[in-house]
Parts: sequence; structure tokens; C-alpha cells
Amino acid sequence: MNETPDIFFEDVVPGNAIQAGPYVIPENELMAFASVWDPMPMHVDKDFASKHGGLTAAGIYLFAIKMHLVHMLPLRRTVIATVGYDEVRFLRPAHPGDALTLELKWTDKRRSRSKPDRGIVTGRYSLINATGEVVMSHLDTVLMLLRSPDR
Amino acid sequence: MNETPDIFFEDVVPGNAIQAGPYVIPENELMAFASVWDPMPMHVDKDFASKHGGLTAAGIYLFAIKMHLVHMLPLRRTVIATVGYDEVRFLRPAHPGDALTLELKWTDKRRSRSKPDRGIVTGRYSLINATGEVVMSHLDTVLMLLRSPDR
Repeated sequence: MNETPDIFFEDVVPGNAIQAGPYVIPENELMAFASVWDPMPMHVDKDFASKHGGLTAAGIYLFAIKMHLVHMLPLRRTVIATVGYDEVRFLRPAHPGDALTLELKWTDKRRSRSKPDRGIVTGRYSLINATGEVVMSHLDTVLMLLRSPDR
Repeated sequence: MNETPDIFFEDVVPGNAIQAGPYVIPENELMAFASVWDPMPMHVDKDFASKHGGLTAAGIYLFAIKMHLVHMLPLRRTVIATVGYDEVRFLRPAHPGDALTLELKWTDKRRSRSKPDRGIVTGRYSLINATGEVVMSHLDTVLMLLRSPDR
């Protein structure tokens, strides 16, 4: 298996996008996750949910899926810290069986003033279902290593 | 057991705060959660982590703990939807054994223009450790029911 080369700070081009997935939501996992962390009827009670459009994924479970898919991107060795998220929006419900693809579109980059081996990079992460609708979206700002800090 | 009365839109006073917890982080849960959703060495590899200040909680696990504690607040019947999060910041690491308290400080409220039975309410959620340091913080905007929509 050929591994995708790591993406370093120098490789980031605002406007460009990369993808991972899809992740198909298992009904039992959706319910089990919510039963521990967010036991709302829409996430854990099939009878209740069947009268309201069907079981939906908890927001925190969507975040977990996003993070799982992030590990499929070639950023594991180059992203060294997360500063934070902004504009987190839950735009559409996700249901059991939905196939969610993660898209990361770079929006901004700048070198660190204090540490020459890294930069601050912002991208918009979106979980997108099979019909192309964005389910969840947010901006993520991370610290990212340079391939050649001395240039 | 006396249940705390539900908090409705009318009860929200910007500047006021409510708390839930603490939640004491079990080491095995911290590692198990991350092994599924965010298997970084700092979260799952005790040997690696011992050389770097000890195991730390994954950000997504902190979100799960926050949501668990939200269910301890008297909002379960009155908050009907989450619009989104803003200014999510991971400010300090959390470690096994840390006792995290959730604080919700209301910051803003307004009536819905289109639906008289609800309002839009924003608050700042903070997970705070036993020494009073904020570990994670974000703004959360929700739709909240009015007790008396006709007034």
C-alpha cells in the first residue's frame, strides 16, 4: 500500500480541499454513543424517533466521526496541536445508514512569529452526506509543522 | 428527591451562571474513548505520554463529558435545538483523575421573530478543573421554550 505523503505547512494552499471517507453510520453505534453521552429521545428511542423523522445522530457523535476521519488524512505527523474551532454549525440531521464524507478546505495560513518550525493554519471541515448536503461544518485552527523551517 | 425546576427562556438572566458536576475522568475511559475516535499517542499510549506530562484527554472526549454534564442541568425539557458553537478553545490539558465541573454562564437572549413559543439563547460553557483552571470553553447558541408564550 502506498501511503499518501504528509501534508506540511508549505503544501497548504487556501482554496484547495482534501477528502476522507465515507463513514457509514451504524444504527447500533449511533444509539450506543448517545446512550452514554447524550441520551435524548431523538438519538436513543426508536419508537419516539419513528414519529419524528427517524433516529438522528447526536452532535457530539458527528464530532467523533469527524475526528475518526481526520485520522485518514495525511496530517497525523504534521498537525501538532488544535487551537480551537469556530462557527460550528449543525445544519442537517444525520441518520443511520448515512454515508458521511469529510471535506477539509484550507482557508488561511501564516507562519508563527515565535516558533520558526511551525505555522497557524485554518480550514473548514464539513461532513457531507451522499446527496451532497452539509450535515455539520466548522472552522478548525491548528499548529502545523514546516517541512523546511530554514527557508 | 426534589428535582430542580426547569429553566425556561424567561428565567435566563445574562451574567448569571449554573453548574453541574464534577465529573472525575477515569483513565480507562479516557484511553478507550480515544482509541476508537482519536488514537493519538498523548491519549492512548501511557509510555509515550509519561515522557510528555502524562496522558491527556482528547478534545472530542471533553466535548462528550460536557454533553454528559449538560444532561444534569435543568434544561432537558426546555432546550429544543442547538444552533451551533462558537469560540471553541482547548485551553489546558485534562488528565486522568481530574475533576471537571461544567459552568454555563448566560450571555445573551432574544425572542424568535417567527415562532412565539421560543427564543434564541447564548451561553458560555466552561469545563473547569479542581484548581479553577478552564480546560475547555465555548459559546453555545440554542433554541429555548418560553414558559408563557402569550405574555
